Amino acid sequence: MKTKKPARKLRPIFKGRKAKTGLPPGSPVHIGESRTGAVEVELVRYDEASLDERRINTVSECVNLKGMPGITWVNVDGVHDVDILKSVGDCFGLHPLVLEDIANTDQRPKMEEYEGYIYLVCRMLSISKSGEIASEQVSVIIGPGFVLSFQEEEKEGDVFDRVRDRIKANKGKIRKMGADYLAYALLDSVVDNYFDVLETFGERLDDLEEAVVGAPTRETVREIQALKKEMVFLRRSIWPLREVISGLLRSETGLIADGTHIYLRDVYDHTVHIMDTVETFRDMLSGMLDIYLSSLSNRMNEVMKVLTIIATIFIPLTFLAGVYGMNFKYLPELELHWGYFAFWGICFATAVGMIIYFKRKHWLN
Amino acid sequence: MKTKKPARKLRPIFKGRKAKTGLPPGSPVHIGESRTGAVEVELVRYDEASLDERRINTVSECVNLKGMPGITWVNVDGVHDVDILKSVGDCFGLHPLVLEDIANTDQRPKMEEYEGYIYLVCRMLSISKSGEIASEQVSVIIGPGFVLSFQEEEKEGDVFDRVRDRIKANKGKIRKMGADYLAYALLDSVVDNYFDVLETFGERLDDLEEAVVGAPTRETVREIQALKKEMVFLRRSIWPLREVISGLLRSETGLIADGTHIYLRDVYDHTVHIMDTVETFRDMLSGMLDIYLSSLSNRMNEVMKVLTIIATIFIPLTFLAGVYGMNFKYLPELELHWGYFAFWGICFATAVGMIIYFKRKHWLN
Amino acid sequence: MKTKKPARKLRPIFKGRKAKTGLPPGSPVHIGESRTGAVEVELVRYDEASLDERRINTVSECVNLKGMPGITWVNVDGVHDVDILKSVGDCFGLHPLVLEDIANTDQRPKMEEYEGYIYLVCRMLSISKSGEIASEQVSVIIGPGFVLSFQEEEKEGDVFDRVRDRIKANKGKIRKMGADYLAYALLDSVVDNYFDVLETFGERLDDLEEAVVGAPTRETVREIQALKKEMVFLRRSIWPLREVISGLLRSETGLIADGTHIYLRDVYDHTVHIMDTVETFRDMLSGMLDIYLSSLSNRMNEVMKVLTIIATIFIPLTFLAGVYGMNFKYLPELELHWGYFAFWGICFATAVGMIIYFKRKHWLN
Amino acid sequence: MKTKKPARKLRPIFKGRKAKTGLPPGSPVHIGESRTGAVEVELVRYDEASLDERRINTVSECVNLKGMPGITWVNVDGVHDVDILKSVGDCFGLHPLVLEDIANTDQRPKMEEYEGYIYLVCRMLSISKSGEIASEQVSVIIGPGFVLSFQEEEKEGDVFDRVRDRIKANKGKIRKMGADYLAYALLDSVVDNYFDVLETFGERLDDLEEAVVGAPTRETVREIQALKKEMVFLRRSIWPLREVISGLLRSETGLIADGTHIYLRDVYDHTVHIMDTVETFRDMLSGMLDIYLSSLSNRMNEVMKVLTIIATIFIPLTFLAGVYGMNFKYLPELELHWGYFAFWGICFATAVGMIIYFKRKHWLN
Amino acid sequence: MKTKKPARKLRPIFKGRKAKTGLPPGSPVHIGESRTGAVEVELVRYDEASLDERRINTVSECVNLKGMPGITWVNVDGVHDVDILKSVGDCFGLHPLVLEDIANTDQRPKMEEYEGYIYLVCRMLSISKSGEIASEQVSVIIGPGFVLSFQEEEKEGDVFDRVRDRIKANKGKIRKMGADYLAYALLDSVVDNYFDVLETFGERLDDLEEAVVGAPTRETVREIQALKKEMVFLRRSIWPLREVISGLLRSETGLIADGTHIYLRDVYDHTVHIMDTVETFRDMLSGMLDIYLSSLSNRMNEVMKVLTIIATIFIPLTFLAGVYGMNFKYLPELELHWGYFAFWGICFATAVGMIIYFKRKHWLN
Repeated sequence: MKTKKPARKLRPIFKGRKAKTGLPPGSPVHIGESRTGAVEVELVRYDEASLDERRINTVSECVNLKGMPGITWVNVDGVHDVDILKSVGDCFGLHPLVLEDIANTDQRPKMEEYEGYIYLVCRMLSISKSGEIASEQVSVIIGPGFVLSFQEEEKEGDVFDRVRDRIKANKGKIRKMGADYLAYALLDSVVDNYFDVLETFGERLDDLEEAVVGAPTRETVREIQALKKEMVFLRRSIWPLREVISGLLRSETGLIADGTHIYLRDVYDHTVHIMDTVETFRDMLSGMLDIYLSSLSNRMNEVMKVLTIIATIFIPLTFLAGVYGMNFKYLPELELHWGYFAFWGICFATAVGMIIYFKRKHWLN
Repeated sequence: MKTKKPARKLRPIFKGRKAKTGLPPGSPVHIGESRTGAVEVELVRYDEASLDERRINTVSECVNLKGMPGITWVNVDGVHDVDILKSVGDCFGLHPLVLEDIANTDQRPKMEEYEGYIYLVCRMLSISKSGEIASEQVSVIIGPGFVLSFQEEEKEGDVFDRVRDRIKANKGKIRKMGADYLAYALLDSVVDNYFDVLETFGERLDDLEEAVVGAPTRETVREIQALKKEMVFLRRSIWPLREVISGLLRSETGLIADGTHIYLRDVYDHTVHIMDTVETFRDMLSGMLDIYLSSLSNRMNEVMKVLTIIATIFIPLTFLAGVYGMNFKYLPELELHWGYFAFWGICFATAVGMIIYFKRKHWLN
Repeated sequence: MKTKKPARKLRPIFKGRKAKTGLPPGSPVHIGESRTGAVEVELVRYDEASLDERRINTVSECVNLKGMPGITWVNVDGVHDVDILKSVGDCFGLHPLVLEDIANTDQRPKMEEYEGYIYLVCRMLSISKSGEIASEQVSVIIGPGFVLSFQEEEKEGDVFDRVRDRIKANKGKIRKMGADYLAYALLDSVVDNYFDVLETFGERLDDLEEAVVGAPTRETVREIQALKKEMVFLRRSIWPLREVISGLLRSETGLIADGTHIYLRDVYDHTVHIMDTVETFRDMLSGMLDIYLSSLSNRMNEVMKVLTIIATIFIPLTFLAGVYGMNFKYLPELELHWGYFAFWGICFATAVGMIIYFKRKHWLN
Repeated sequence: MKTKKPARKLRPIFKGRKAKTGLPPGSPVHIGESRTGAVEVELVRYDEASLDERRINTVSECVNLKGMPGITWVNVDGVHDVDILKSVGDCFGLHPLVLEDIANTDQRPKMEEYEGYIYLVCRMLSISKSGEIASEQVSVIIGPGFVLSFQEEEKEGDVFDRVRDRIKANKGKIRKMGADYLAYALLDSVVDNYFDVLETFGERLDDLEEAVVGAPTRETVREIQALKKEMVFLRRSIWPLREVISGLLRSETGLIADGTHIYLRDVYDHTVHIMDTVETFRDMLSGMLDIYLSSLSNRMNEVMKVLTIIATIFIPLTFLAGVYGMNFKYLPELELHWGYFAFWGICFATAVGMIIYFKRKHWLN
Repeated sequence: MKTKKPARKLRPIFKGRKAKTGLPPGSPVHIGESRTGAVEVELVRYDEASLDERRINTVSECVNLKGMPGITWVNVDGVHDVDILKSVGDCFGLHPLVLEDIANTDQRPKMEEYEGYIYLVCRMLSISKSGEIASEQVSVIIGPGFVLSFQEEEKEGDVFDRVRDRIKANKGKIRKMGADYLAYALLDSVVDNYFDVLETFGERLDDLEEAVVGAPTRETVREIQALKKEMVFLRRSIWPLREVISGLLRSETGLIADGTHIYLRDVYDHTVHIMDTVETFRDMLSGMLDIYLSSLSNRMNEVMKVLTIIATIFIPLTFLAGVYGMNFKYLPELELHWGYFAFWGICFATAVGMIIYFKRKHWLN
């Protein structure tokens, strides 16, 4: 088992929340790890025939696009620049509470219907090249003919690249479908990544299982506990996501077309599958802890047996040697010529008797 | 890890309840820590244009205000003066059972609809300057155009100050909205404070985790148990609060305007988030207890190994030394010139053999 | 911690049930502790203006009273006299199965609607003067204009005295309300007593907690288990009581007036509160068991360390002393003048080395 | 505690199931313990005035009886003779799947509505004279004017004897009521027997509790586990039975008259009561295991303390005695006249010092 | 207990999933163990009178058969050949997502209604001749007049052979019923096999129970954990299968005839029965772990007692022997003629005293 990174702090980060205390509700304030990178806004517009993709500088550009035919997808990488959030919000008519939630990267996955659009937030997990698990909040707004997506950070090798590629390559039917299908595609990418994360966890579990059965150390318990924590974290991300998707399926806003239901149901099945796997992993981890603890007891038993066997054989013999080392003036056995050999005879007899006793008690297997 | 205050008694306090035994229902009797400070009644009246804020001496003053346009907020600090409660109750037409519940500071959070008003009670947690967690019962009455709030104790740095400030500064839309929005603002302040409390617990958890992994002592278990108790307490406060808010959302009294729903849903999400965090903390605490117990076993194993190694090596050798200390007349080895050196040879051989045995058993790592 | 009474047997008592085997259903047979005291039947008749209270000898007297204006309350102390039960049953037209249930003091709290009356049964807990917890079954029949109550035993200082006093003193609105309010008042007395019982348990918990943290003994575990059992018992009594009360609230028989709902809801809240407290107590007891077990391990560790330190220091030294006690003819060190002092030097060096080793392992704190 | 019979195998018995593999559904095959006794078919026909009870040889006899006025009860003792089952089935028009279920004695209690009749199956527990618990499957068919019951085995002292006796003696109203009441009476007998079984378990629990608190042995844990298993078995029998009865209560076939509902509700209450008791027993058994385990640790602590006290006192003294047994030429203390007495003085001082130390550590209580 | 095969890896296999990353949804990609065997497609066409069964080479053959009278059953053995899947899908008009799910052998059992057909997937467990448990995914499509079934692998001794045989032999009513009955027959075969698997597990449980009570080893815990894992796996397969069947029962597509409901309810009962058994097995396994752990503690206690008894008797005596081995010039007892015998007297007295003490402490039983 290779050494692992120290377990990530899994308790929620409320950084920045205090700054907010006292503000009226609906004031977007960035809560989360402080970031400084520039926020990038990317615009993708497409219909079955045409495709327009570019970075936009002035967010106000988007105003012109709204209401035009085709699908508009605005992807914002970085939610720490509150001004950009506000201008996007103004442009698409978002409620201040929505902007507040987007800026607060400490959200529980949820789905809310507003007048004219659906707001949903989920947590994207990904495995970086160095093997670490990174967690990021993704907010998606589904409106008539447009989708807005907000990620915490710009990264190369974005999970949304798959969707972008499909749009560019005009693969599958993404260019033929509406904004709801695009939103589905984004959700699907997010959920697909959970499988990768589970795969990684699965491998760590296998390593752990070997370690537990083989030569468990203190480190093993800590690793078990660390994985348990990660499972709690995963569960907290995926469980409400299930509700988000079933919320979309039940939505009566008319923003989700019936034809998209079948795809959403597919994503829903994936989340159930992931939950199932997470629960199985938790069961396995509990089982490992049980094995570990019982192996501790087993080892203690073994150590104690060795001590007891040695002590039980030699302590009486040492006493006997002590007896014949006494200086009593009158100690008849000492005078016997065969006394010494008799002593050894008694010693061997005692030792053999003890060993037979231990054999019978099954202490010597 | 710095030393902590002794864990607060978390079992409910029924002080004063016996005094009540035998009284007909609807007789308000103060139940809870006995307090003696003067009860202060504060009146805030505002509409979009005007604001009137003052202490009132004669509660009967409020009679004149009822039914006038604008929003009336009466905040009572202290519920131990039953007479004041009664006069407020008479003035706003509260049911005797409601007054009884307000005076009894040992309530479970709940929400009840009465003819013409909604009564809700929740528990406010706050962290005092000295770092302690203080718990206080808050009752809120929402009526048409008025809100009554009852706190247990007058404190500087009240959580309701934030709301007062917003009203005074005319920040946000609080002055434009109705009594239901004011009630929402009060609830929001209460719930926001839970995040601060969780933050504090999170830090104590981090300290604990370090202690558990590093050098756990008896004190550590007690701290774990103390935190577990606090979690139980928090849970008991927040779980029913969720129901209170969803009760408000489902209320059909007409006292909660549709426009306020979106804000209440936001508070609702916060309570869900807090519950989630509390559950995570509980899981983490259980994990710590497991680590602690397995580290106890580990240490025992280590101690036992040291004892066993020492004893197993030296007990046979001591026996041998005892043998050659015997006074048998005829003990041939003693006469040998190289006998003593042969003895040491046997000793070293035995010791080395034992050590190899322990190595093979992985007892020496 | 003072010595406690031996834990009450909490498994249900089926005494007398066998006697019943083979009888057709609806044959009242007393099941429970056998009692011999005389059964007392007390009649209270009142309306807003008049009050009539007396013992009745012939149960047939009640016949005349039925159907008259005002409220009739018949309280029967003792259910072991089946004949009296039958005559009361005949008089008020009770179903044979109801009489059977009243006589069987081993009922689970429940509420049943019959043609013309509601039958409910609950369990009354009280603390006797000697500090013991007594449990008694209470059956209540609510009919139009009459209430029948059945207790297992006549006791001085009855919990129903509070209600009697209120009726006599014409306190509150009991004389102005109907039979349903009277039934509510009885239920309220029963539930109020649970708080006293919880208070007593709370004190025992505090004692226990001190004992667990201080000097836990075997007795402590037994006390923890005994309290756990009591909690199970309390839970079994209060949990279905909640359903009983919500059953009354949902009742569509017309026997429960709308004006009484608000009072029943209050009792309902009390039962929820009690359940909550019971759950908290259970959590605390589990926590105590954990502390107890970890303190056992801790103590074992401590004991083992002392043994190991002593043994590890002295066993090698004893070996050394044994070596120089040997009688080899040629044992050069013995001849050295400073040999004995060198021996002590080695002893001290070894001991100091060991102590430094233990210090480094944190065994000596 | 007297020695118990070895715990019954509680895992389901699938004997005979393999024989069935490959047959089309609806082919009755006996699954269960193989039995060879003759199957007895008993016919009871009664109305308010007349009663006819006899063994029937040709099952075809029953054909004539069907459709006649009065109630027909056919009781079949033994389900291993598939031909008899088939002829009964043909006679009363039972579905092949029903016959298959009757022959398979490994059914989970359930209730099914068919065209014209209700089929229900439950598990009857009884205590034989030798104190053993016997389990048997009982199938009941309720049709218009007839009841069929199927037991696994003919036994003297049948639980249905009670019902037979009531019919013969015309006790209660069984002769006045319909087939549904007869079915209720059979169910009631079955459920009543569970109380006897619980009574027996209760006594074993008491024995166990005494053993656990007094002198627990390995046998005790096994007995605890055996009882736990029995509880699992009981639970599996009674839990679905509850659903069976509530299914009868909700049945809309018209086969269950409204007047019988009150009786079925009574049986329903009994099953809830039994479930409750089973849960309590399980809680008590878990508590016992906890006590047992902590008493193991306690005993280990005690043993360790004795060892440590003895070793800690004598090991240093033995070293000292070893020192003065050395043969150094120059060992000044040996020459002192009072040396030996000084030695004893040191010994006593050391021993007393150790004992004071142990006293302070509370090891000697 | 014979040695078992190493526990199967139970974490889901995502092999091939990565290959899929980036493809648009609805692209069937084989996920699962890679297989290379040829895919066989078998066609069975029957009505009450005629039967036609053969291997088909060109899948397009099936086109002609669709819409013809009678029932068409196409069974595909092997889902790794995506082209064949696609051609079958085209022929019967299956949705691309359905094909994707069929190819992905890592599905959770589920049931989905599509326009014109029902898609369901479940997991078939079987015991191979070598005693191993094999798991295979089975997909079934139910359409009007046709059933498609997809298995992962061609095996001799297929569970579907039973169904084939019944069709050929015209046993039971399978030839008279519709496609829904055929689908039921397939499901029934799958579920019947679970009983065989449970039977095998039951035997392993019995072996384990004997081992745990007799001479538990480390291997025993691992076997317990392995069986626990298998139970988790079984549960994950059967739990959703229950929902699948109840989904069929509630289906409103018209594809499931009312007459088939009674058969599906039967399968449903079987799944409930299996779940029940799985839960019982889990309970039993937990109980075994408890017994195992307490037996570890017991053995430790026993070992410790032996050590303590030996050490406590001989350590003081060794000290005494050491005392009289000292070389003090003035050591009066040594001069006594009866000193040596007195020494032995003291030794025996001490030993007997100790043994009496141990007897009283019940250490010697």
